[in-house]
Amino acid sequence: MKILLIGYGAMNERVARLAEEAGHEIVGLIVPDHSKTYPYPIYNRISDATDADVVIDFSNPELLLPLLDENFDKPLVVATTGEKERIVQKLEALSTQIPVFFSANMSYGIHVLTKILETAVPFLEDFDIELTEAHHNKKVDAPSGTLVKLYDVIDQLRKDIEPVYDRHEQINKRSTNEIGIHAVRGGTIVGEHNVLFAGTDETIELTHKAQSKDIFANGALGAAQKLIEKEAGYYTFDNL
Amino acid sequence: MKILLIGYGAMNERVARLAEEAGHEIVGLIVPDHSKTYPYPIYNRISDATDADVVIDFSNPELLLPLLDENFDKPLVVATTGEKERIVQKLEALSTQIPVFFSANMSYGIHVLTKILETAVPFLEDFDIELTEAHHNKKVDAPSGTLVKLYDVIDQLRKDIEPVYDRHEQINKRSTNEIGIHAVRGGTIVGEHNVLFAGTDETIELTHKAQSKDIFANGALGAAQKLIEKEAGYYTFDNL
Amino acid sequence: MKILLIGYGAMNERVARLAEEAGHEIVGLIVPDHSKTYPYPIYNRISDATDADVVIDFSNPELLLPLLDENFDKPLVVATTGEKERIVQKLEALSTQIPVFFSANMSYGIHVLTKILETAVPFLEDFDIELTEAHHNKKVDAPSGTLVKLYDVIDQLRKDIEPVYDRHEQINKRSTNEIGIHAVRGGTIVGEHNVLFAGTDETIELTHKAQSKDIFANGALGAAQKLIEKEAGYYTFDNL
Amino acid sequence: MKILLIGYGAMNERVARLAEEAGHEIVGLIVPDHSKTYPYPIYNRISDATDADVVIDFSNPELLLPLLDENFDKPLVVATTGEKERIVQKLEALSTQIPVFFSANMSYGIHVLTKILETAVPFLEDFDIELTEAHHNKKVDAPSGTLVKLYDVIDQLRKDIEPVYDRHEQINKRSTNEIGIHAVRGGTIVGEHNVLFAGTDETIELTHKAQSKDIFANGALGAAQKLIEKEAGYYTFDNL
Repeated sequence: MKILLIGYGAMNERVARLAEEAGHEIVGLIVPDHSKTYPYPIYNRISDATDADVVIDFSNPELLLPLLDENFDKPLVVATTGEKERIVQKLEALSTQIPVFFSANMSYGIHVLTKILETAVPFLEDFDIELTEAHHNKKVDAPSGTLVKLYDVIDQLRKDIEPVYDRHEQINKRSTNEIGIHAVRGGTIVGEHNVLFAGTDETIELTHKAQSKDIFANGALGAAQKLIEKEAGYYTFDNL
Repeated sequence: MKILLIGYGAMNERVARLAEEAGHEIVGLIVPDHSKTYPYPIYNRISDATDADVVIDFSNPELLLPLLDENFDKPLVVATTGEKERIVQKLEALSTQIPVFFSANMSYGIHVLTKILETAVPFLEDFDIELTEAHHNKKVDAPSGTLVKLYDVIDQLRKDIEPVYDRHEQINKRSTNEIGIHAVRGGTIVGEHNVLFAGTDETIELTHKAQSKDIFANGALGAAQKLIEKEAGYYTFDNL
Repeated sequence: MKILLIGYGAMNERVARLAEEAGHEIVGLIVPDHSKTYPYPIYNRISDATDADVVIDFSNPELLLPLLDENFDKPLVVATTGEKERIVQKLEALSTQIPVFFSANMSYGIHVLTKILETAVPFLEDFDIELTEAHHNKKVDAPSGTLVKLYDVIDQLRKDIEPVYDRHEQINKRSTNEIGIHAVRGGTIVGEHNVLFAGTDETIELTHKAQSKDIFANGALGAAQKLIEKEAGYYTFDNL
Repeated sequence: MKILLIGYGAMNERVARLAEEAGHEIVGLIVPDHSKTYPYPIYNRISDATDADVVIDFSNPELLLPLLDENFDKPLVVATTGEKERIVQKLEALSTQIPVFFSANMSYGIHVLTKILETAVPFLEDFDIELTEAHHNKKVDAPSGTLVKLYDVIDQLRKDIEPVYDRHEQINKRSTNEIGIHAVRGGTIVGEHNVLFAGTDETIELTHKAQSKDIFANGALGAAQKLIEKEAGYYTFDNL
């Protein structure tokens, strides 16, 4: 594939490295600051990169949104977070003419974890659920966005749940609608997510472990590869 | 519920204890040896226990099969292992007149694990799969019957898999159709089963842990409770 | 061994059952309420049980403390929690004449975990530490007493640590003196304790899992068996 | 530090990158093939790199052994595997004049795991032991060298142990002197090692997880930093 990248932060640097290792070619970048030096040609608009097969975005709404208002005919993979509603609205409009893929979390494994969770929750309605995630000691926000996503999946399927973040001064037993949420922080842990279903004399656990942020870059590349063979439409991991 | 038990070995002793703790009543037993002393009345045929609401079997084909040839109208939960074909055949015949439940593994959690696995395998076709189970140091057979069941689920969904039990003298890299199988034995571990999906820079694990053999007794009791409200038919965990 | 039990609550009932299964004999009980019916002879004072080889206490300070003021010459295993200072003071006085064993946690495995932790902490001074415990959904207090004990071991060996129970609204990165503490609650989990050391690109974990409260009863029985062969003295798991 | 590298394979490339990121300087390389292009000056003998503070070797006996026969006065960190006896013999001779560090496994965490294991094994003599390691699907040898090292630690401390690699056709119960050994292979797992102690109703687990091969490079760099402040002598992780 010949790839145009929107943004060239840590994530798209990984996309470029992994793409080239896999035999693809980076034909150019769209970046906000043209004064810096980059290892690829710089473009202003998507339509300027005439030889690109596909566009991969890991940027931000300020850079991305104006680009979506212009004319272009390339398949587009979008991983920007923030301003989700506006982005989705524009992508849906574009999807009548080009294939568009959007996901706020490009890890295929996390996507699969949510599908497994959708299977598990209805079967295990008598089981208590606890969510635990672990990340490196530099991560400021807690719990992780992925844990919130897992919580939301459960929230769709089980009535009246509520998150509990701290039990150390509680004086009551756990209620069945509690979902305990635990954010472990330490060292350079890339990212682990665990869903515990605890019942009478048995437990079931679903665990995802990321070993490298490459999974997000590879997720975008994998989506791009499938997207270039699709017809116009709005795609997510669910229908790709 | 008023329960008639077929067999009174270790499992139905647990059923009796847990049933009484939950407010149910054991109205009698069908056992092969009438010379021993039992804490409940002894019957010869299911139809003799006129006040029973439901029948729970944890016995063996010798005791069970002749009983199935007689007339009776009680809902029936069967957990006998061995002679599976003959038992299923007779239960299917009976199921036109009474509700019948059959499962060779009464743990609800293990059943759910198989359903989760059915969801996971098709999504994760590029991931390597390894199966590990752990049991107490008195268990002779390896791998466990439950692990074999998990393997069979995978076998239905992925082509050309083959089990690998020992790698310590191998001289080739793992092939993608290998399913590594690991049987850990030690102490009094009741039973743990783990399915590992290992991909590029990420893993997903599905784990079931049993803490007590009570899960099998409670699984039978739970099935019985649902069965007495059902119409005639052949039920498993899939359609109960 | 011929054993006299002080207290006959849930724990000493287990001690009696496990002791008999192992071929020992319960020669009597000391209990506060003589109006109830018990399966063993009732005594008022330790010295009345003339044929006992050893005494095992799982009671409370009200029952235990007055007994310690009287004369007796039996080896004594004490597991009462509460009023620790007064109990230790009296046991130390007694230990000049009889062998006395005291531990607030009779699980041998938890004792070993604390010894392993004492080895690990000084080696891993650049690693972040996080503590996680999991218990059943009926447990009210959090974190568990055992987790507090593990924290205390770390506190002896690493300067200026502080516990952190909740990160979900924090706006700063983890500081190196934080010890994250996580209390998972669900189902009937008997008790799990995990110490995570997270460093640069590697983690070490120490995990203890209890499968049954029998470990506390067996811990007391094991201590009793060793104690009856000891000379007078004050014993703990460290010097038994 | 100013560092001379012996060898410039995958491991010393990592050492160079991590050293520079940490503010150290690579002053040169000793490599067998001078026809290739390298990003650092090439030397033939250790004594030629007059400005080096320390030497780090990740090479092989062919390259390393001749260098050890010449005169030089730099502290030396050696990570070459193979020809262990000859290398140790030469390093011991050198250690009367310079500080020398040798370890076949430069991961500090694995070293700590062996020390923890030395604490744990004597306490847990009634517990069954099982060893499990997991690595990527390209690894040919099984079990890993690190697992063999863990086995050797146990072998020093427990009598008459024997490894068991395959249980799937066994017809006897586990004997107490068995050490089950399990080699999991899948995806890109960097390296996990688990020691399970399974006793009556409780288990203790010791687990090391590597997230990147950087731990070996960082282990060598950390050893180098301590070594340059030491007097002449033979050092390992045990006495550094």
